[in-house]
Amino acid sequence: MKINDIEIEDTYAEAFDMYISRILITAQTYRWALLSTTEAKGLGVSATMGPGETGIETEVQIDSTPDRRPGYILDIGHSNKNELNKWLVARMRKCVIPVPTTAVFNELPDDAKDYFVEIKGTPIQLFGDGYEKIISKFGREMYKIPRMDGFFYIESRFGVCKGIAGGNFLILAESQPSALKAAEVAVDAIKSIPYVFNPCAGGIAASGTKVGGSKYKEAVATTNDPYNACIRDLVDESKLPDDVKCVYEIFVNGIYLESIKKAMEVGIKAATTVDGIKKITAGNYEGKLGKIKINLSDVL
Amino acid sequence: MKINDIEIEDTYAEAFDMYISRILITAQTYRWALLSTTEAKGLGVSATMGPGETGIETEVQIDSTPDRRPGYILDIGHSNKNELNKWLVARMRKCVIPVPTTAVFNELPDDAKDYFVEIKGTPIQLFGDGYEKIISKFGREMYKIPRMDGFFYIESRFGVCKGIAGGNFLILAESQPSALKAAEVAVDAIKSIPYVFNPCAGGIAASGTKVGGSKYKEAVATTNDPYNACIRDLVDESKLPDDVKCVYEIFVNGIYLESIKKAMEVGIKAATTVDGIKKITAGNYEGKLGKIKINLSDVL
Amino acid sequence: MKINDIEIEDTYAEAFDMYISRILITAQTYRWALLSTTEAKGLGVSATMGPGETGIETEVQIDSTPDRRPGYILDIGHSNKNELNKWLVARMRKCVIPVPTTAVFNELPDDAKDYFVEIKGTPIQLFGDGYEKIISKFGREMYKIPRMDGFFYIESRFGVCKGIAGGNFLILAESQPSALKAAEVAVDAIKSIPYVFNPCAGGIAASGTKVGGSKYKEAVATTNDPYNACIRDLVDESKLPDDVKCVYEIFVNGIYLESIKKAMEVGIKAATTVDGIKKITAGNYEGKLGKIKINLSDVL
Amino acid sequence: MKINDIEIEDTYAEAFDMYISRILITAQTYRWALLSTTEAKGLGVSATMGPGETGIETEVQIDSTPDRRPGYILDIGHSNKNELNKWLVARMRKCVIPVPTTAVFNELPDDAKDYFVEIKGTPIQLFGDGYEKIISKFGREMYKIPRMDGFFYIESRFGVCKGIAGGNFLILAESQPSALKAAEVAVDAIKSIPYVFNPCAGGIAASGTKVGGSKYKEAVATTNDPYNACIRDLVDESKLPDDVKCVYEIFVNGIYLESIKKAMEVGIKAATTVDGIKKITAGNYEGKLGKIKINLSDVL
Repeated sequence: MKINDIEIEDTYAEAFDMYISRILITAQTYRWALLSTTEAKGLGVSATMGPGETGIETEVQIDSTPDRRPGYILDIGHSNKNELNKWLVARMRKCVIPVPTTAVFNELPDDAKDYFVEIKGTPIQLFGDGYEKIISKFGREMYKIPRMDGFFYIESRFGVCKGIAGGNFLILAESQPSALKAAEVAVDAIKSIPYVFNPCAGGIAASGTKVGGSKYKEAVATTNDPYNACIRDLVDESKLPDDVKCVYEIFVNGIYLESIKKAMEVGIKAATTVDGIKKITAGNYEGKLGKIKINLSDVL
Repeated sequence: MKINDIEIEDTYAEAFDMYISRILITAQTYRWALLSTTEAKGLGVSATMGPGETGIETEVQIDSTPDRRPGYILDIGHSNKNELNKWLVARMRKCVIPVPTTAVFNELPDDAKDYFVEIKGTPIQLFGDGYEKIISKFGREMYKIPRMDGFFYIESRFGVCKGIAGGNFLILAESQPSALKAAEVAVDAIKSIPYVFNPCAGGIAASGTKVGGSKYKEAVATTNDPYNACIRDLVDESKLPDDVKCVYEIFVNGIYLESIKKAMEVGIKAATTVDGIKKITAGNYEGKLGKIKINLSDVL
Repeated sequence: MKINDIEIEDTYAEAFDMYISRILITAQTYRWALLSTTEAKGLGVSATMGPGETGIETEVQIDSTPDRRPGYILDIGHSNKNELNKWLVARMRKCVIPVPTTAVFNELPDDAKDYFVEIKGTPIQLFGDGYEKIISKFGREMYKIPRMDGFFYIESRFGVCKGIAGGNFLILAESQPSALKAAEVAVDAIKSIPYVFNPCAGGIAASGTKVGGSKYKEAVATTNDPYNACIRDLVDESKLPDDVKCVYEIFVNGIYLESIKKAMEVGIKAATTVDGIKKITAGNYEGKLGKIKINLSDVL
Repeated sequence: MKINDIEIEDTYAEAFDMYISRILITAQTYRWALLSTTEAKGLGVSATMGPGETGIETEVQIDSTPDRRPGYILDIGHSNKNELNKWLVARMRKCVIPVPTTAVFNELPDDAKDYFVEIKGTPIQLFGDGYEKIISKFGREMYKIPRMDGFFYIESRFGVCKGIAGGNFLILAESQPSALKAAEVAVDAIKSIPYVFNPCAGGIAASGTKVGGSKYKEAVATTNDPYNACIRDLVDESKLPDDVKCVYEIFVNGIYLESIKKAMEVGIKAATTVDGIKKITAGNYEGKLGKIKINLSDVL
C-alpha cells in the first residue's frame, strides 16, 4: 500500500489496555491554566517506570468550561488501576492545588466511564484540614477547599475509563531532519482529533523500545535495535531499508479505539507529505505488550 | 524593618537539607532542549508526595555547553537520598532519552559535590542492551547509547550535593491581583541568580501548607489556615492583618545557602515595588520542617 | 447598571469605519505558521501613525484549512482604503513570502466583502519574475510562485470589508495589578468570539488617548489625561473616582457589529470578576473619532 | 574549503551600510517586555518595502538594566537615515508606549554612535500634551510621560550608528527538512553572539532575492531563480548542484563588522553538523546591493 507514493507496511500497531482519566484544568487566565497543566503533564512519558502516561489534549475556551474560565484538557493514564488512582490524585494535589487561581473538573465522557476515583479520603480532601466543604456549583458536585489565594474548587470525583495505549506508527526517513519534520507534521495534524493524547515530549519518541532485553534479560524495555540505523552493522536482523538513516515513533493513546484510528490516519497521511520519507510501519511485539492489533491497512 | 515602605516581618524562613543534582540537557535546537527539560521538570513541585522537587534554572548558549549545542539547566532534588537517586535516573530515562537529539551532562559544581550517582547498572545503561559504550567525548566520560535517531550521549555519573530547600517568603497583599503580580515580579527578579531553583509551576505557591494537620492528624501537610484570608473568620489565630485578602509564597531551593539568601533578597525587593503589597513575611514551623533558619533581616 | 456589583457607566464606545481583510496563513507546522503570523501582525497597533491595525484572531486546525495544514487567522485593517490595500500587500510580501513553507488564503466571509485586492500587478506577483502562474488548487484560484524552498501559494485576490474599529471599554481599578489582571481576563474571554480582533500587544492599551491635543494643537492624539491617575491633581476635570489608581483600555475591532458587541459583553463580564475593579466605562470623543455609538447598556 | 566535510564555496556575502539603533525595552515582567518587543519587531523583515529591518537580540536580566526590571534588546535598522529616524520613533510610539508598564532605553554602545535621534518634538513627546517632563532617573536623562497606568519613562535620545546589513550565507541541502533544520541550528548558534540581529521571522529566509528583475524590469527585488530548485529546468543558469533540492538563507545585520563575521562563523559551523547539507555559499550581486564584501574564507 502506498500513500503519497510512500510505502505503508502491511503490519499492525500492538496496543494494550490502559486506565485513563480526562481532567479539565481552568484558571483565571490561559497562562496560569497552561502552567498548571504543563506541570501536571510532566514526567508522564511512559508507564513502565514512573508515574504513568499523560498528554495535553486541547485548549478549551470559556464558553465550553463549567466555570467560564479558560482551560486545558489533560489525559492521565496507567496500565495498572491502583497506580492510576494514586497518580491521578498526586498530579492534582501537587500540580493543580499549588498553582494560583486553578480549578479542576472531570471531563471524561459519561459513555466511557468504568469507575470513579473519589476525592474523599485522599490527600486532596485532607489538605482542607476540616475547612473543606462539598457544595453544588458550576452544575457539578465540587469540593471547596481554602488556600492562600481564595477557595480552590475540585470536582468531587473523577471518572476513569478502560482506554487504549500503544497506538503507534514509525516514520523511516533518509535523514534525521526528514524523519523529525515528518513526525512534527504528524503531531500537528493529530491535534485536530479529540479524545486522544500523546505522552512524549513534543509528541515524538526517539527511543523506540523492544519488550525486555536480548543481552540484559532483567530489563523491562531496551533499545529497539532493529530500528537503530546507527548500529545497523552490529544488529543481526535490521529492519531498516538501506536508504533509511533515522526513525521516529509517534504514539497515540486514547479513550476510544475509533479516535486512535482516526488520529493514526491523519498522522500518517500528514507524515507522507514531507520530503525524504521512505516508509511508514508500526511497532509490534508478538503479543508481549498487548492484545489489541491496529492494522495500518484498516486505519488508512 | 521596611523596604519601599512595606513592612518586612522580623522572622525567618525554616529550611531543610535536600539532596540536589544539577543537570544540563542539550539538543539540536533550543526548542527540543526545552521540550525535554520541561517534561523532566514536571510533577516536581513537592517532595512530600511524589517524585521530588525540580526547577529549570537557566538557558545555556552554545559557547557554554560541552557539545556546543543549546541547552537548559535543570535542578532535581529530594530530601531522601534513595528517592533522589531513583528519580534522578527516572527523569533522565523517561524525559531525556526519548526526546529527539538530546544529550545530558552533569553540571553540579565540583566544590559542592557530596557523591555521584553512577549510570552503570541503571535502566539508562540497560536501555543500551549491550550496544552501549563508555567513551571520552566533549572532555567528559560519556555513555554512548544507540537510539532510533542516532547515538544518545549521557555523562557516566552525576554529582549530588547536600543543598538546601525551603528558603521562602510570603507576600501579603490587599487583593489577589496585587499578590500575584508581586509574586511574578519576584520570580522574574530571582531569574538573575544562579544555583537556585523554584519547584512551583510558574514559581508561585497558592497552597501554602502547615506541617501535619489540626483536624486530620494523619495528614503530612494541610492548608496553612492562619494565612487563608477566605476563612479568616473560622480560624482561631489568623496571622493576616485586616487589610490583607490574598497571600502567595515563593520558595527558593538551591545548592549554596548564599545563593538562596541572594535570591530571597532580590525577590523580596522586587515584590515590594508592586502596588497593593501590605507585608512580607516567611514560613516557619517551630523546627518541625528543618533546622536551617534564614532570617529576613539577614538577607536584606 | 451593575454587573458582579461593579458599576457600568451609562455611556458608549465611539467607533468608526475601518477597511478590514481577513487572511489565513498556513505552514508545514504550527510553529512556522505562528512565526509568520506574528511577524505580519507586528507594528499593527494603531492606524493614526504607521501601517494600520492588525490582530491574530485564532488558530485553525488542519481539518478547517484549504491545504490541510495548520494555520492562524490574521485580521488587517486601516481606516484609509488605499493604505489598507498597500499594507495588506506589504505585510504578505514581507512577512509571509519569506517564511519557510508558508501559504496564504483569503478568509473573509463572502457576505461581508466590499471589494477585492488583486495580487496581480503587486510586488507579490512581480516577485515571481515571470515564473509565477495562476492555477486552480485547494478549491481556490492561487498564484504559484517559486522560492528557494519550493512553490509558494497565495490566493489570487483578497476580500476587504467595511468593518468597524474602536469598540472599546475602560477598566478602572484600585491598583495597577487589579486593572491589568482584569484586562488580561477580558482578553482571554474575548478569544472565544470569532470575527473580532484586538490590535494591542497582549490585547491591552496603557496609553489611552484623546483626539488631538490641548496644549499641542498639532498632535493627532495625546494622552487621555482625564483618565491618568498619576496626574490627577494637574488635570482640570479628572474623570476618575477617588479610589481609582489605574486604568487599562480594551479595544475590539471586527467585521460585524454584532460580533464586536458580543466580544464587549464577554470581556466586560469577565473583567468584573477580578478583585479590585471599581468601574467600567468606555471611550468616546464627541463624534470627533467616528459616527458609530455602541452603548454599554446595549451590549450587556 | 570544507567544514565537517561540507563544501564551503569560495565566495563572499555582499553587504551594505545600514543606520541602526539599539534599544532596551523593559517592563514589570518578562511577559510584558516580550509582548512589547515582539510587536515592535514586527513588519521588520526588509528595508526594500516597508518600515525597515529589526531583530530581537537578547533577553536582559534585572542586574543589567537601568531600572532593574527584566527586558529585551531590539535592533532597528534602515538603509535610509530619514526612514530610520521616522520608524524608530513610530515603533516606540506604537509598540512600546501602549503596552502596560513598559519603559525604553538607549543601548547603543557609545563607541559606535554616529548621531542621536531626539525624542523632543516627536509624537512621543507630543503624546504628553504638556504633562511630560525631562528628569534625571536611572542614571539617564529620561522623559517622564503620564499614561493610564502610571508614568512612562523613555530616554530622551537614542543613538544611531552606521552599521552593516546583508551579512548572509546560503544553506544548500538534499531536502527541505535538512535545509530548514540546518538553518534553525544556525540561528540558535548565532544567538550566542552579541551586537548582531536577524530580521527574518524565525531568522530564516525562504525567499532569497536578486536585485531587480529579469522579466519585470520595474521590480526592486525578485525571486532568486538560480537558487530555486523547483524551477531548475526553467532557469538558464541554475547555481544548484544536481543533488540540491532546497535552499534557505540566513541574514546577519549588526553594529560591528567583527560581530557579523563571528556570527557567520558560528552559524555556518553549526549548519554543517546537520544531516543532508550539501554546500554553503553566500549571496552577492555584482556590487548592485552594496560595497562591503565578507569572504566566507575570512570568517571561517
